[in-house]
Order: sequence, then structure tokens, then C-alpha cells
Amino acid sequence: MENFHFQIPTHLYFGKGEERGIGAYLRPYAKKVLLHYGGGSIKKSGLYAIVTASLRDAGIAFVTLGGVVPNPRLSLVREGIALCRREGVELILAVGGGSAIDSAKAIALGVCYEGDVWALFNDDIVTGKALPVATVLTIPAAGSETSASCVVTNEEAQLKYGHTDNAVRPVLSVINPAYFCTLPKNQIANGVADMMSHIFERYFTQTKHTDVTDELCEGVLRAILKNAVKVYDNPQDVDAWYEIGFGGSLAHNDLLGRGREEDWACHGMEHELSAIYDIPHGAGLAVLTPNWMETVAPENQAIFGQFAHNVMGVQPSRDVEADIREGIARLRAFYRRIGLATTLTALGIDGARLEEMAKKATGAAFGDEYGQGHFKTLLWQDVLAIYRKAL
Amino acid sequence: MENFHFQIPTHLYFGKGEERGIGAYLRPYAKKVLLHYGGGSIKKSGLYAIVTASLRDAGIAFVTLGGVVPNPRLSLVREGIALCRREGVELILAVGGGSAIDSAKAIALGVCYEGDVWALFNDDIVTGKALPVATVLTIPAAGSETSASCVVTNEEAQLKYGHTDNAVRPVLSVINPAYFCTLPKNQIANGVADMMSHIFERYFTQTKHTDVTDELCEGVLRAILKNAVKVYDNPQDVDAWYEIGFGGSLAHNDLLGRGREEDWACHGMEHELSAIYDIPHGAGLAVLTPNWMETVAPENQAIFGQFAHNVMGVQPSRDVEADIREGIARLRAFYRRIGLATTLTALGIDGARLEEMAKKATGAAFGDEYGQGHFKTLLWQDVLAIYRKAL
Repeated sequence: MENFHFQIPTHLYFGKGEERGIGAYLRPYAKKVLLHYGGGSIKKSGLYAIVTASLRDAGIAFVTLGGVVPNPRLSLVREGIALCRREGVELILAVGGGSAIDSAKAIALGVCYEGDVWALFNDDIVTGKALPVATVLTIPAAGSETSASCVVTNEEAQLKYGHTDNAVRPVLSVINPAYFCTLPKNQIANGVADMMSHIFERYFTQTKHTDVTDELCEGVLRAILKNAVKVYDNPQDVDAWYEIGFGGSLAHNDLLGRGREEDWACHGMEHELSAIYDIPHGAGLAVLTPNWMETVAPENQAIFGQFAHNVMGVQPSRDVEADIREGIARLRAFYRRIGLATTLTALGIDGARLEEMAKKATGAAFGDEYGQGHFKTLLWQDVLAIYRKAL
Repeated sequence: MENFHFQIPTHLYFGKGEERGIGAYLRPYAKKVLLHYGGGSIKKSGLYAIVTASLRDAGIAFVTLGGVVPNPRLSLVREGIALCRREGVELILAVGGGSAIDSAKAIALGVCYEGDVWALFNDDIVTGKALPVATVLTIPAAGSETSASCVVTNEEAQLKYGHTDNAVRPVLSVINPAYFCTLPKNQIANGVADMMSHIFERYFTQTKHTDVTDELCEGVLRAILKNAVKVYDNPQDVDAWYEIGFGGSLAHNDLLGRGREEDWACHGMEHELSAIYDIPHGAGLAVLTPNWMETVAPENQAIFGQFAHNVMGVQPSRDVEADIREGIARLRAFYRRIGLATTLTALGIDGARLEEMAKKATGAAFGDEYGQGHFKTLLWQDVLAIYRKAL
């Protein structure tokens, strides 16, 4: 285990009816907020009306900015920053999924930064300064409701960059899993693939002596696998949604990676796909992850064997390589079971721009090849091989 | 799963050499601290010198108060309160195990309370006001380094009461597991029994649909079981100590019980034992827990079967009652394996005062029988039966 620092500062209000408390929960933080959201689904579900009534009851003024799309865009972030400055907004309240939350985080950073907000992402500038962010979650997936990260797409440059700054870790998040019951099946599946990947990125490590966090990662993965099938088959199963909602937040609040060197190659490789092809992040991860696993498993058979046995339920045999193959095959079968594609071709991605993406993912495109991932650092040729394998 | 609120505000600094940073970590919180500790072990280990040098380097003034004993006493707490008021202390820094930390928490509460500090414990008065508390942990056991609770013994009245107030949850805690390597074997075993009990109190619940937290509880328990034997057999195994140290903190930082109704009968029953007989808390828990399990298992065989299968490694059979018996037998065998007693007689406790303790534990002694525990609420006759069974 490596040295670590750990804290979970985000107040999580979890369960039935908690969204009705949002105004009261926010009162200590702000007198005026930006209510930031995506399309019409929160109006249809009644959540918009509940949240705005709760804000009014608490005497909190608000302005609104909707229109966040999946792979949230820099142009809307810039619009939000201007709006917040003009209106004297003190906190950004995202009501929605990871895209609304990430867009809110970027706005929160941008309001407190003198230069153009994209510089923070492009040059990885950590200012430690942002308006406070709060969230009401409607899609369990990105884990952004408890994380310090956000991902924004510069749609003109076709660049999708993540950025991490503790200043944007939400001060509070509300999760009422009842709102998940109306999600379409493809969003359910994409979300599950995303939260599982947040655990994989932490679980697959070269760090030794990690019993406690191995157990935490494996346990949350098992709970997600079990309940993902339930909510996919019956989106009305609110008990199963509670598990997915809690699991998805734990997946990305940093606990599961403490004392471990984390990887993050799959996320890095996927961001290139969705930046260019605008596919859902989770869909890209479901394709890339098994291919990444097959490529890097020889670097540490112990942890991949453990994954096969403890997460995917493979009976341990004397042939650990066979066990690992079976574990990865079961993961692919699980993805298929919940309707996810397992090839790039099925996502409409051909071989035309793979080299360009591989070079962007590793920095080689910008003359500074830092590579991708820590479990095994992948150079652009390695990433290209994984993309090709995934076709 | 029940509704819940969740946050882990305590900054945990974990790993090699972290104690050298204590002065820098404390600087944002206080200019003058009370350094509170037990006997001479922290001077012998060199920790006292390191901590005081770090405070001096950071320009933090300090006064000291040693002499905390296991089952920390009200008299020393009162002495600490007077000292802090006289010296204008702004934060209590406990360097030691759960006793030093709990004593520090009681002092922190008492300084900010006009009346006598015992009233807070006796009448369960939650003021929400305390000096900030920080810790450098030397014994992994009580989990007090991340919890909001403390337990103090009124030695004159032979009463040992716990008290919970978020105001005493430490603002930061430092854990360098290297300091655990010099612990005597009985303290190792008592600590392990205590941290396991913190998980049991949360794990055994009547709440349904608790997959995620079931997994977390079972996983941390397995990691503790595995590594407890290692550190017991070889206290120099610092890698195993990392797991025990991290596991012990997770056991009591509230995560593992979120959305579950918790029990706490074993803790309540044990406090009566150690209040009168001054035995180590963990030793009492190791005796009572299997007897409590045997008594209440019929109330929910599903969770006790799960415990047998997933924690104690019992192969599932068609006879769940037999599986449960075997699971509890293995738990007793584990306690014996690390040198713990499994009868009250072996702890020097006879039948003379069992009824008195059973009535105190349930409130019956004070004319207000609230009972003990939530998994199954035990009245004084039930508690007496468990005490007798444990003789």
C-alpha cells in the first residue's frame, strides 16, 4: 500500500424524497444559484418543479441554463460563465447526469478564472478556485456527484479533456434512485459500464499489499453486476436502483483507489472516441475495456486472476491464463447481456482515424508522448493496437 | 436500504512518516494545542519527540497531559478541561489509541460546556460544540480516529457511557502503521476484536436490500481476519498492519452502516463489563459476540447464513442452521487463535453482578427500560441470559 490522504467532503443525501430538501441543504452556501440541466426530462419527471419550489421555499434566488448534451460542450460552458458573472451567481446546482454536473463544474471553475476556461483543461491548470457546486443526480454513471473531476468537449477542436481540481468536488449531492426508473435501457447500460470502469481504473494496479481496497473494489463490482441486470430487465426495480446509485457514487469518490497506483488508460483512450464520434462514454468503455485487459493482463496475472475468480465468478483452476481469458469473456458477455456493443464497428467507428486518436491519447500528436495509463504505460502504437483489436 | 446522509470529513493521512507532518497539518486549525496521551510508550517509541518537534517547527505552542489509562476516566477528563481553559488551548491532539482519543474528545466537549462534562454522557446532551480534535494513532482498535463517538468511565459511579456528537469527529488523523509493530500481542488481539465488532454492529441488520454495504462489511471483515493472524504471529509485518490500520478506520467511519439499521447491543452489554471489572473492551466483545449471535440468529437466518458463508468461509449446505453454527464456531476459533478468551470466567468475571449489569445495560436499573440493540431489542432478562451463557 502506498501513502495516501483521504477525505470524503461531499455531503450525500440519499433516498426517497431527498430532492425536496435541496433548498434547505443549499441555504448555508448561497443566496443565488444557477440551475443547470440538460433537456426536458427533468421537467417531464416533475423534478424541475420540485427543485425550483424547494429553492423558492428556502428563499434562494436562481437563474436557469438548460441545454447540456452528452459529452458536454465548451460553448455552453462559456455561456454559463458569462451568465453567472452577469447575475452574481454564488453556486452552481446541476440537476441531471454526469454531463450536466461536469458542465456545471467547468462553469464553476471558469467564473473564478480570469483567462479562457479551456486553458484550464488544455494546460491542466489547477487553480483551486471555483464557485461551489451541488448536484441532484438523475443518471447513475459518471460518479461526478462525488468526484473532483469533470470532462468537457471542445467541439470545434474535437478534443475531450478531463480536469481534476478539488475545488469542484460537490459540496453536496442528492440521490433519489426513484428518478432512475424512467431511464431508457441504453442509458442504463452506458451508466453501468462507466461506473464499473471507474472501479477497474483503480482496481488494476501494480501496487502490492492492497487487501482492503481489493475487497472494496471487488465487492462494489459484484453488487453492480448483480443489480445492473435487475434494473436493465426491470427499470422499475427501485431497490436495485438504490444499489446502483450508491455503488456508482462509491466507484468514484476516491475511496476505492486509496493507497493504490491507479491506471486510467481506458478512460484516456475512450475520450478520443467520444470527442470525434460523439458516442456515449460508457459505450466506448465497454468496447475498449476487455481489449485493454487482454493486452495488459500478462503484466500482472495475479490481479487479473483475482478479478476472474472474485468478480466474474470463475472457478480457480491450475491454468491462471485460462481463468483470466474466461473472466474477460464473462465480462464481455455481461456487457452484451445489458445490450452493449463490444466492437467499435458496432458503434459506427471504422479504422480511418485510429492513428490520429492513438497519437492524441498519448500526447504523441502534440510532440510530447507521455503515454496512457500506469498499470502498463501504453505508447501510441500500443493504443493503436488496442483500437484495431477492438474494431 | 434506508435513507441516509453521508460524509467523511476527517482528513486521514496514512502511511510511512506521516506523523512528521502533524505540525503542518494542524497549522490551519490552532496556534496552541493540548497534547494528550497515555503512558510512556510514545516516548519510548520516539513518537513523542517527533510530534513535539513537528509542532515546534510549525510554530504551534502546546501543553501536555499524559496518564490516560484504558477505559479512560472522568477524573482525568475534568483535569484536562481545567487545563485547557487555563491555558487557552484551541485544539486537542491525542497521540495514542482509542482511550487517549476518547479522553481527548471528552475534554474537547467539556471545555465548550458550562455544566459538568459528565452530564453530556449521563443525559446524552448533544451540544454540537467542542474544540477541534486531531489524532496520531498508535493502536488500531477503537476507530475513534474517524468516529464521532467517545466512551468515558465514571470510575466512582462504575458507569461507562458512550456519547456521540459530530463536533468531536477528528478534523484530521495520522496513521503510520509502523508504530503498531511494537504492540504486545494481547493489545493486538483486543484491537482486532474491537474493530470487527464495529463492523458486526452494522452488518447484522433487519434492513433489506443492502447489497453494497453487505459487500463492504464482508470485504473489510475478510481483510481483517486474514491480516490479524499475520500481525499476531509476526508483529513486524508492517504490510499486514497497513491493512489492519486502514480496515480499523473504515470499520468505524460510518460508511459501512449507511442505509442500514445498526445494532450495537454487544457494545452496550460490554460497556457494563469493563465499567465494573476494568477489562479491555475488545476482550469483553470477543466473549459476548458469539453468545449474542447464537441468541439472535433465529431472528434473521439469511444474514447469519451470509456471514457464515461469505465471511467465515463455510461451504453452503442445505442446512442453514448448521452453517450458522459452524460460522459462529469458526469465529470463536479465530478469537482463540489470536489468544482471546471466549468465556467471562476466563476474564475473571463470575456470576455475582450479572443481574446488576443487565439492568444497567437496558436502562431497567434506572426505571426506564429502553433495552439494548435494534437487530433484536434485548430486555434485561435477555441480556442476563447472554451474560450467563457467556460464563
